[in-house]
Amino acid sequence: MPTLAVANKAPLQQLASICQTEGTVDLAERLRRLDAWLRDDVAQVARALQDMRGGERIVETAAVDLVTTRGKYLRPICVALASRTGHGFTPAAHQLAVAVEMVHNATLLHDDVVDLAETRRGKPAARLLYGNAASIFAGDWLLVNALMRVQASGVDGALPLMLSIIEEMVLAESLQLERRGKIDDEALSTNSYLAVARGKTAALFRWAMIAGARAGGVSAETEKALEAFGLHLGVAFQVIDDCLDFAGNESALGKKPLADLREGKVTYPLIVAARQVPAIVDNLREFLATPETDAAADSMMQHIATLVRSSGALDAANQFATAQIEAAIAQLAHVDECEAKEQLRTVAYASLARSH
Amino acid sequence: MPTLAVANKAPLQQLASICQTEGTVDLAERLRRLDAWLRDDVAQVARALQDMRGGERIVETAAVDLVTTRGKYLRPICVALASRTGHGFTPAAHQLAVAVEMVHNATLLHDDVVDLAETRRGKPAARLLYGNAASIFAGDWLLVNALMRVQASGVDGALPLMLSIIEEMVLAESLQLERRGKIDDEALSTNSYLAVARGKTAALFRWAMIAGARAGGVSAETEKALEAFGLHLGVAFQVIDDCLDFAGNESALGKKPLADLREGKVTYPLIVAARQVPAIVDNLREFLATPETDAAADSMMQHIATLVRSSGALDAANQFATAQIEAAIAQLAHVDECEAKEQLRTVAYASLARSH
Repeated sequence: MPTLAVANKAPLQQLASICQTEGTVDLAERLRRLDAWLRDDVAQVARALQDMRGGERIVETAAVDLVTTRGKYLRPICVALASRTGHGFTPAAHQLAVAVEMVHNATLLHDDVVDLAETRRGKPAARLLYGNAASIFAGDWLLVNALMRVQASGVDGALPLMLSIIEEMVLAESLQLERRGKIDDEALSTNSYLAVARGKTAALFRWAMIAGARAGGVSAETEKALEAFGLHLGVAFQVIDDCLDFAGNESALGKKPLADLREGKVTYPLIVAARQVPAIVDNLREFLATPETDAAADSMMQHIATLVRSSGALDAANQFATAQIEAAIAQLAHVDECEAKEQLRTVAYASLARSH
Repeated sequence: MPTLAVANKAPLQQLASICQTEGTVDLAERLRRLDAWLRDDVAQVARALQDMRGGERIVETAAVDLVTTRGKYLRPICVALASRTGHGFTPAAHQLAVAVEMVHNATLLHDDVVDLAETRRGKPAARLLYGNAASIFAGDWLLVNALMRVQASGVDGALPLMLSIIEEMVLAESLQLERRGKIDDEALSTNSYLAVARGKTAALFRWAMIAGARAGGVSAETEKALEAFGLHLGVAFQVIDDCLDFAGNESALGKKPLADLREGKVTYPLIVAARQVPAIVDNLREFLATPETDAAADSMMQHIATLVRSSGALDAANQFATAQIEAAIAQLAHVDECEAKEQLRTVAYASLARSH
């Protein structure tokens, strides 16, 4: 792991730590440069999030607790870099960067209730610490506070766009919910998968890029390219997330591996594996029909995971994510040469190498 | 029950049906006049809500299902009347009236998950029909769609104010959550009660009045008076709600009576009764410490309800609600004489006489 000369627990260090050093010397060097260049911006966002405290209500505590626990701050970094392709990380851009992290955390609070998650960022999920009810209301609280910030930024169109983006996210979560546990041709199609990934993950990256672009006052053409960069980065991010569910370990992930599999979510590696090893489909159906309490359930799940790992599906998924990152970087051709553009490349590369 | 010449299932008929005719002949006459005067406005809101349909996602179905099930439309009626104290129920006011009902329904979707409610408006709660997860996301979907409408209305300040109001509502829900099941001096104080009631219920009535006032272009003084009207109306509404939990029956309420008691929520009649009959406090603590599955739990609860009913607390609560309505009506002194002002009086009186 690259040793970065950054402040303790600095979010950029988190970003660096997600880069596995084997064969990525160039990336380590790139991350050092990103850190040096963006350190103040990120520190400013981190400080705003640390300082975010409401009163003494449990929903405020639950929300602040999550927001102040180490995150990768990838979405605020996208806002900062997009704004720096224009006239810089202005106070308005700063507001938007803080807001996007708050929205992200709000969705985590609701998702963890929906998924009955037990851990998040290496700590018990808010719903276990404070209860499902507080976790739902904490998500609501964080969401309206984020929207207040977006409104206060005064950046043209940022608020209506955020509302549409949240709707996209919710509809994608709904689609995923409806398909959960259903293992059929539709669920196992790449198109279905992409519809969910674009909505639940890539949409907020898109917003981060557009919002930063607008705050930075870039041209419409540049904004469009940056939005497309966000879309592809977001899809790649989700595919790598899917792989980590199979390949990661609990301490790096900060949550239990195989959570997606356990919840009957169809992920990218699973789709590829099911095509390579048709037996996986029957195994999956049998597993999903088995009550979680059944002694056999865990070994059935481990067996499926082993089949997926040995099918070559994780390599295929990584290739797909790489193609998405290439598509993201290709969009940067429409952005004038500048340091921020170079750093967006670094973020794109780093997203492929992350271990959590 | 007054027989009103209104269209089938018209929301104003709902409002009329909540007026118990015994001794309220004048109110029945008033409601006929309100119906005749406001019928078109309410029909327009009802139509917009009926027409609200998204795509085929389950969260959209769950949300639309609730929104299109008979509601009292009290909050949209507040928007319409407030706007008509000014220059009328403009398209912008109409948008705000639809939005306030959507926000109200969004909170119901989250509340029902939090309270593990089984019925709502006489039908199984969304969380039972579609699951907790869909109910949470349906609330999120409805909320962002409501905010989009508020934004689209273009009414000055309506959106930031709605965000603050939602924050107030969430914080009050949090306070209630934290106090739930705790029967101590603090929980049994009127101040604690009012802090919750003002936030979780009255805040949205306040918004309805302010939003209508702004859409109607009234003076700052009139707006302030209308806001105060909304505050008092909302508190009265909550106190009557509390009474109905003890006095109402399931078919009129559309949900199980004694739900608040079962959930350990301290309501206004309970506070009064605990002062009159100190034994209630011990009974309550014992009941709340008894698992719901215990055969004795239900009879303990019925015993407490009987004590509350025979303590005179329901009368006292009605008196308190009446004083709130008087305070609401007193605020109308700052509003120029007009038909809408007279109709606000009707709404205030009717809120005391409702049976669900």
